Amino acid sequence: MKSFEKNLFKADPYIAGEQPAIDSIKLNANENPYPPSPAVQEVFKNFNSEILKKYPPIDGLELREAIAENFELKAENVFLGNGSDDVLGSSFRAFFNGDKPILFADITYSFYPVWCNLLNIPYENPKVDENFELNADDYKKPNGGIVIANPNAPTSICKPLEFIEYIIKANPESVVIVDEAYIDFGGVSAVSLIPKYENLLVVQTSSKSRSLAGMRVGYALGSKILIDTLFGVKDCYNSYPMDSVALKVMLASVKDKEYFNNTVAKICKTRDNTKEQLRKLGFKVMDSKTNFLFATHPDYSAKEIFEYLKTKKIYVRYFSKPRIDNYLRITVGTDNEMQAMLDALKLFFAK
Amino acid sequence: MKSFEKNLFKADPYIAGEQPAIDSIKLNANENPYPPSPAVQEVFKNFNSEILKKYPPIDGLELREAIAENFELKAENVFLGNGSDDVLGSSFRAFFNGDKPILFADITYSFYPVWCNLLNIPYENPKVDENFELNADDYKKPNGGIVIANPNAPTSICKPLEFIEYIIKANPESVVIVDEAYIDFGGVSAVSLIPKYENLLVVQTSSKSRSLAGMRVGYALGSKILIDTLFGVKDCYNSYPMDSVALKVMLASVKDKEYFNNTVAKICKTRDNTKEQLRKLGFKVMDSKTNFLFATHPDYSAKEIFEYLKTKKIYVRYFSKPRIDNYLRITVGTDNEMQAMLDALKLFFAK
Repeated sequence: MKSFEKNLFKADPYIAGEQPAIDSIKLNANENPYPPSPAVQEVFKNFNSEILKKYPPIDGLELREAIAENFELKAENVFLGNGSDDVLGSSFRAFFNGDKPILFADITYSFYPVWCNLLNIPYENPKVDENFELNADDYKKPNGGIVIANPNAPTSICKPLEFIEYIIKANPESVVIVDEAYIDFGGVSAVSLIPKYENLLVVQTSSKSRSLAGMRVGYALGSKILIDTLFGVKDCYNSYPMDSVALKVMLASVKDKEYFNNTVAKICKTRDNTKEQLRKLGFKVMDSKTNFLFATHPDYSAKEIFEYLKTKKIYVRYFSKPRIDNYLRITVGTDNEMQAMLDALKLFFAK
Repeated sequence: MKSFEKNLFKADPYIAGEQPAIDSIKLNANENPYPPSPAVQEVFKNFNSEILKKYPPIDGLELREAIAENFELKAENVFLGNGSDDVLGSSFRAFFNGDKPILFADITYSFYPVWCNLLNIPYENPKVDENFELNADDYKKPNGGIVIANPNAPTSICKPLEFIEYIIKANPESVVIVDEAYIDFGGVSAVSLIPKYENLLVVQTSSKSRSLAGMRVGYALGSKILIDTLFGVKDCYNSYPMDSVALKVMLASVKDKEYFNNTVAKICKTRDNTKEQLRKLGFKVMDSKTNFLFATHPDYSAKEIFEYLKTKKIYVRYFSKPRIDNYLRITVGTDNEMQAMLDALKLFFAK
């Protein structure tokens, strides 16, 4: 080891889904199979690149107002970030500065423990039950904060609003983050609780339901005091995380409500059809309120199925982690993509 | 204070330049007065927004190769970030994990102490001399890392390569970051030293010389071990800080070397003319190797001049900080913008 190496950061990173070759069917990153709203293409067509010589509007006010309007909130209740990972990372920094451990489920978004390790935040992981269900009473012990992914990933399960409110109500001394990356695919958002609970932060993303994974726009919704604290964190790290293009693109997407609703409805329909087909093939499939399906087969190993599909250039997600290492997380693509996957599975089972 | 507030982050943020109304002359954020390369407009014209449904390429390889080629380095020597602030913030996290204080000048980019406070990094500030010059021997004491802005901000002074190498050579146990946000305006980059010193990281930005402040693209150049460590930090915070548009826009800019050279040359010419004009008005102006001028007047207070120019809708930067609170930092705009500022100054002096 060279002498200057002693002070270097040692990473224990989050691992994102593989990025396979272009001619494959990519069902491993919960991306949307449809393009973003046509209004987004108009933004590019009309974009005057000269505006890029200036820094972006530092507060993203126009976009924050448009997002706020969607939820009957004010701009002061909206924080923007470079993808919801940036928003969540900033939120961990902003709200989890106590000595007590924060709480999140043992099976949930695997970036949470990575942020805790990065930011030296102690944490505990209440176990989901054998059906991957959260138990609200696990979140009633002393804690430094709570994070609930709802719907949960990679299990696809969504809890009702009463369940979320029960946890928030039981924790007036903590900030409760509800990570709603997948809420648009059939769940009920906790946003309606924001006027009632100042300690509630809801995080959403444009990456899934808005087909904007490549644009990196996420946002948080919450009381003014929480949003102000997030702005404080941002201003201590990067004054301008949102570029001028992302602000305009997201604004166009947010304003096109019809396209958004239609796209989400199409994906939900394909999801429910695929779920039935998978069940006919013998899979146990969780009831999903997301744009992916979480499935296991009683007779075949998930890892083997995953590897087989890869040979057919179909990429799904497999986690070699305790409790879920015999499950597949399958992103909902187009009807054709799902049919190709189902056909490949039939071939595999016929072998 | 509400009970959940005890664990909230307390910010001590960096304050960016004001964003005045559109009809004003904005010489307060060191932005480029010229548009980005015409090749950038072509990117927007030809952009297929459908690609945004997928996550961006996680490693930005094509852009990293193009940047590397400019400096006779390899892609493995290039790290990309969401503006050079993101790159610098990530670098502080990546390299300054020792117990000893890191060293940077008392008068330099004022984001450095903000990152130190955010990340709990101890620091000491060697004083620049009465001419704002750094003393290389101040950087020979035990330390946990070194940051040199070269050219320095807001003083505009550039040190020669030998000065930088002297400091790197004296500190084999530390990572030395050379922040070259303004290097393209006449300084000599330390990039040529990278093959010789594995502990050297050079940080540059597209915000100034490439007119891409609104696009948020910065980069670091260094040995593979430093770049790998930066990737580790990124993967512990946000897998995809670079969006698909920013990657394409920066690539187009990097490939258009002729436009880049012409734009930089124009700004340097305007800068040197303006410097002479300011001196004729009695200002003491530092010799600048940046796209801004650092100036003080023996007979008039900088704060008064700053406030007066604002009434004329001309925004320059004033820092109410020890040692520099009688100086103005004036961004180099177009010849017309500089003439308008000089005319306003003449009016002020004639009062």
